[in-house]
Amino acid sequence: MPVFFWLVPLSSVLALGFAWFFFRQMMAHEEGTDMMKKIANHVRRGAAAYLRQQYKVVIIVFAVITVIFAFMAYVLGVQNPWVPFAFLTGGAFSGLAGFFGMKAATYASARVANACRVSLDGGLRLAFRSGAVMGLVVVGLVLLDVSAWFLVLNVFIPEAEMGMKLLTITATMLTFGMGASTQALFARVGGGIYTKAADVGADLVGKVEAGIPEDDPRNPATIADNVGDNVGDVAGMGADLFESFAGSILATALLGAAAFVGFGEEMQFNAVIAPMLIAAVGTLLSIAGVFMVRTREGATQKQLLKSMGVGVNTSAALIVVFSLGVLFLLGLPNYLGIWGSIVIGLLAGIAIGQSTEYFTASAYRPTRKIAESASTGPATIIISGIGTGLISAAIPLGIICVAITLAYSFSAGFTFDSAGLNMGLYGIGIAAVGMLSTLGITLATDAYGPIADNAGGNAEMCHLGEEVRKRTDALDALGNTTAATGKGFAIGSAALTALALLAAYFEEVKIMFVKFLDMPDAIINGIEPVAARDAQFIDFIHHYDIHLMNPLVIVGIFIGVLSVFLFSGMTMNAVGRAAQKMVDEVRRQFREIPGIMEGKTEPDYARCVAISTKGAQREMMVPSLIALFIPVVVGLIFGVAGVTGLLVGTISSGFAMAIFMANAGGAWDNAKKYIEEGNYGGKGSENHKAAVVGDTVGDPFKDTSGPSLNILIKLMVMASVVTVGLAVSYSLL
Amino acid sequence: MPVFFWLVPLSSVLALGFAWFFFRQMMAHEEGTDMMKKIANHVRRGAAAYLRQQYKVVIIVFAVITVIFAFMAYVLGVQNPWVPFAFLTGGAFSGLAGFFGMKAATYASARVANACRVSLDGGLRLAFRSGAVMGLVVVGLVLLDVSAWFLVLNVFIPEAEMGMKLLTITATMLTFGMGASTQALFARVGGGIYTKAADVGADLVGKVEAGIPEDDPRNPATIADNVGDNVGDVAGMGADLFESFAGSILATALLGAAAFVGFGEEMQFNAVIAPMLIAAVGTLLSIAGVFMVRTREGATQKQLLKSMGVGVNTSAALIVVFSLGVLFLLGLPNYLGIWGSIVIGLLAGIAIGQSTEYFTASAYRPTRKIAESASTGPATIIISGIGTGLISAAIPLGIICVAITLAYSFSAGFTFDSAGLNMGLYGIGIAAVGMLSTLGITLATDAYGPIADNAGGNAEMCHLGEEVRKRTDALDALGNTTAATGKGFAIGSAALTALALLAAYFEEVKIMFVKFLDMPDAIINGIEPVAARDAQFIDFIHHYDIHLMNPLVIVGIFIGVLSVFLFSGMTMNAVGRAAQKMVDEVRRQFREIPGIMEGKTEPDYARCVAISTKGAQREMMVPSLIALFIPVVVGLIFGVAGVTGLLVGTISSGFAMAIFMANAGGAWDNAKKYIEEGNYGGKGSENHKAAVVGDTVGDPFKDTSGPSLNILIKLMVMASVVTVGLAVSYSLL
Repeated sequence: MPVFFWLVPLSSVLALGFAWFFFRQMMAHEEGTDMMKKIANHVRRGAAAYLRQQYKVVIIVFAVITVIFAFMAYVLGVQNPWVPFAFLTGGAFSGLAGFFGMKAATYASARVANACRVSLDGGLRLAFRSGAVMGLVVVGLVLLDVSAWFLVLNVFIPEAEMGMKLLTITATMLTFGMGASTQALFARVGGGIYTKAADVGADLVGKVEAGIPEDDPRNPATIADNVGDNVGDVAGMGADLFESFAGSILATALLGAAAFVGFGEEMQFNAVIAPMLIAAVGTLLSIAGVFMVRTREGATQKQLLKSMGVGVNTSAALIVVFSLGVLFLLGLPNYLGIWGSIVIGLLAGIAIGQSTEYFTASAYRPTRKIAESASTGPATIIISGIGTGLISAAIPLGIICVAITLAYSFSAGFTFDSAGLNMGLYGIGIAAVGMLSTLGITLATDAYGPIADNAGGNAEMCHLGEEVRKRTDALDALGNTTAATGKGFAIGSAALTALALLAAYFEEVKIMFVKFLDMPDAIINGIEPVAARDAQFIDFIHHYDIHLMNPLVIVGIFIGVLSVFLFSGMTMNAVGRAAQKMVDEVRRQFREIPGIMEGKTEPDYARCVAISTKGAQREMMVPSLIALFIPVVVGLIFGVAGVTGLLVGTISSGFAMAIFMANAGGAWDNAKKYIEEGNYGGKGSENHKAAVVGDTVGDPFKDTSGPSLNILIKLMVMASVVTVGLAVSYSLL
Repeated sequence: MPVFFWLVPLSSVLALGFAWFFFRQMMAHEEGTDMMKKIANHVRRGAAAYLRQQYKVVIIVFAVITVIFAFMAYVLGVQNPWVPFAFLTGGAFSGLAGFFGMKAATYASARVANACRVSLDGGLRLAFRSGAVMGLVVVGLVLLDVSAWFLVLNVFIPEAEMGMKLLTITATMLTFGMGASTQALFARVGGGIYTKAADVGADLVGKVEAGIPEDDPRNPATIADNVGDNVGDVAGMGADLFESFAGSILATALLGAAAFVGFGEEMQFNAVIAPMLIAAVGTLLSIAGVFMVRTREGATQKQLLKSMGVGVNTSAALIVVFSLGVLFLLGLPNYLGIWGSIVIGLLAGIAIGQSTEYFTASAYRPTRKIAESASTGPATIIISGIGTGLISAAIPLGIICVAITLAYSFSAGFTFDSAGLNMGLYGIGIAAVGMLSTLGITLATDAYGPIADNAGGNAEMCHLGEEVRKRTDALDALGNTTAATGKGFAIGSAALTALALLAAYFEEVKIMFVKFLDMPDAIINGIEPVAARDAQFIDFIHHYDIHLMNPLVIVGIFIGVLSVFLFSGMTMNAVGRAAQKMVDEVRRQFREIPGIMEGKTEPDYARCVAISTKGAQREMMVPSLIALFIPVVVGLIFGVAGVTGLLVGTISSGFAMAIFMANAGGAWDNAKKYIEEGNYGGKGSENHKAAVVGDTVGDPFKDTSGPSLNILIKLMVMASVVTVGLAVSYSLL
């Protein structure tokens, strides 16, 4: 193994080490008053109870799927024999990341509130570094998983001619992503339903019926609401980006092995480890970035945002330079073009974040227009929110179109002929890696949000002094801004990762094509010179008819769109039903437990947590199973042609729907806050009431259905990758 | 010309003759009291004013586009020289159909109200036959346009070898659909914005602020609202289905010419006229069906529905039998398979209508669940409406998937190999023709709705006796049911037509491929024996790289989805803005004109009509131009590969979005009515208020953005068809 490969496990160990360091550092802080400790403990227990319950379900699902994979691998022979094991490590590592991230977040909130009793800078640094625990654990565990398996398979997979060894290793490794995807599915969908059932339920009875403020300890659902922030925005978001980070690296490794198969073994090896190295360097830069985040007392919102930006942007700027260095040292041909693709990926991520901010922040026209439309009541604020949300999807879609055209074209050497195809697809993959390379720090800003939010909640519930609450409010407001751009980034990177995975799917099909259909080995494109490869490529396309005149492809695309609409509708309704149960419970407690409203008796928080947990578990099953089964069923009926259509349909419409939902939800949220700041009548006015309706509708949009679609588009591809053998060997049509 | 071809112009003349007969018959009825005449006259004048204004805009757009086409045809040489002329006839005929249909509808409403003073049967028959004017004018003019051009081109286009003559004729004729599409765009988008701006505006001030009932003559916007029903649901719907009817016949004729090119001239000719003949026979059956609709006094809602069903279903059942006869007499090979495709199309239309009814009628669970969710306020009714609407899109998408798989497979002889490709695509086309064959009568039921609605409005405003209003209410309620299934049918047929047009687009590309790229003539598949054709087919696909590994195709699909989201968002916001202007105007009139609320002064109806008209004109321009330009721009940048992706992306996601919007809107509407019937608290309760919010949000969903998408998905293909020369010759990438 060449010496520079060891940078990958090294950066993994450093990331995990610093995560541990930040965690210990945070734990060394005081949690504050008894009341603060008690509230924090409630939230901690609730979050732990939720995770325990979720992991129980996940373990059962993993057991069943592992058995199925083992059957496919050892009985049917249509599955790689390593997959059942690798599936388990991917799932376990992702689960572990969620566990540690949430542990850090729930231990941090009261400590952050307590730190705010002293200074704003102390609060910010503590909150941000606690968020960094999540960020660094995620990237650290992904790099550990990737490098460990790469080393193991390098030993166990026999040498083969013509670059087949690396092709086999990377094709095998890609399927590991399935574990991460499955775990992410349950974390995102379950967490999303949980958090919004609690939030909507708490708001409907608390704010609307009983007229008590948010985060009021008299509201029985308030702890569940705070728990929800952690399980949805910390554990769910973490699992989502774990999957993207792992998926983009693994897909690009395979695409590299395929594209550089004719360039000699060393070059092929370098192309395979390039994405891993870039991710490793990005991780080191992220660690450095975390230390740059600090502020001073009395900082304005803008200055706070800038403090955080220093860390994130410095890492991003440096990765541009360092990745050029990495590619140069690896000596890849057309390394400038490939570097161009990386830069495109980074820029696309930034641009999507900017567009999200434009469409959801109250500083800009769209959200202000939505706030204005509250003056004719709830119906018009809903209409304009949906209208603007739909329009807002056009920008990120356009950005992704430009990004994939350029990323492909740079790496392919400015051609769209099939001769440049493999290089071009490698370019799309490495663009995704570029976008995600500094995930360690970008995810820290995401996880920071709910920590600050919970710190604010804790301060509110414990009636800390006004000065303290001003500080926690400032931190919380910063969290809302980073949450919006973070969501855009999560969706954009999911789309680009899904496209990279799709390209890798074709490679998997080609490998199966050779294996099961007795086609000559040479058909794997790239082994022979360009002209022959071209002919084989046509053969391949013709064999599977993956062109747009084939009705099976069209049907696949329709089913892809169908899946997105069905899945979003089901998760929307799930929140509605689960919230209803919460409403019933809160009403019951107000009615049956005397003294709650006077603040004399503590409400039964645990029961609300249990109801949200149970509701989320029940409601997540059907949509999750649908997401898992559709690719398999389509593969069995419509074959590879149907599956490719399915994936393209799901990715394109799922991406659009996710952006629409996230932006509409974010804009309603901020329109409400804008009115609360005293515009268009201010708090308590009819306009404000209308805006609250918009905000409530937006809750499942932005925190349940929208983010769940990130998972759907990646999971569908992963599920197709791991069951490609079934589609190739057993399809009906 | 063989003798049976003359059935096509004959049925056209008969359809137009009976339309004239029904119109005269209706005009012979009395309009009732002076007040009734006055109200009807207001609506008539308002509708005429709107149409005048719309046609002014349309004429300018047509003039510009005709010049562009002439430039493309006579200067660049990338366009068929007949297109500029044919474009104009398509547009003119569609405009004429809208004009006559609306004239009939606006003359009918007071007469129907007056007939209801005598009997329910009299009212029903008059309303239905007035609606049939629209239905028969549409099918009559389409068949006239098609048969006239077919005869003309047969004379002018020179004889050519190997079936090239019919291929040229049908390829030329297909581009005629562009005129119908462009006119439909403005009719549907403009009409949709008009009707909902008036409706939402009238409701927000009238019902919500002033507390006066719907259709109250004191509301200045009430006439505009009634005009809206006519311009949206009569003229808009008519233009939409004019386009589908014409598009499906023309596309199938071209697909027939391509599929049967190797079967001898006579057989090819028969395949070309088969769709025309089936449409002609369906038209004759529709005329017969209209005469079957009658009822008796005191009929229940169910019996009324059955009366209408007798006409529609008998026509549909008979076309199944007759089309088998037509195909048998034409002696087409595999005529049983082709007949199977027709039946599949018919069944798919019915199934989509049924699914629409299930998801939007208050007799079923989904709408009742939505009504129930009103008990926790407007936010939850919106969430559950959106959730259920999204889920409901899955069913029609699934139906279309099954329909295209079967229709293709039946006609292709149960194969998905590329050898059966042309036959299979012909099968998809003829399925669309089958679904639309009895359009004469199905469209009559659609146009019936707004006539009955306006009759009810007239009766309400003129304070006719309770007995009369009971009768008009019964007719109106029937109209609401047929409107829901009619919408489903319009969307489903638009999707199937768009797919047929897409298949025809490939044929157009092939023809251009030969013409501009100096490829051998033989490349037009079908001319040579199967093996050679197969090779050419691969060549063709390879040349344009229209497969799913080509990033340009993927980018195209993303842009297609982008267009759908952008277009729906823009039309949603258009309604919001236009309604806001109406609200301001109504508030102004209440404030400035004394005596309105006491019923002493007549409000300024005309000004409200003018505001809606102006608002609709202004707001429809940007989305319409975007819809026209996107295919051209994508063609110029990304070429044929990008355009094919674009079309598939637009059709699949546009279809899903249209169903979602139509069903969510319909369900909210009926959930509100269900509550008004005394469920969940009844009229005036908090639940009812929440349901009104849902209904108002649903208005632009179901009557503006949703139906406009029908046009978008067809227009995009048509625009690609007529500009195929640009994409082939001048594309950048």
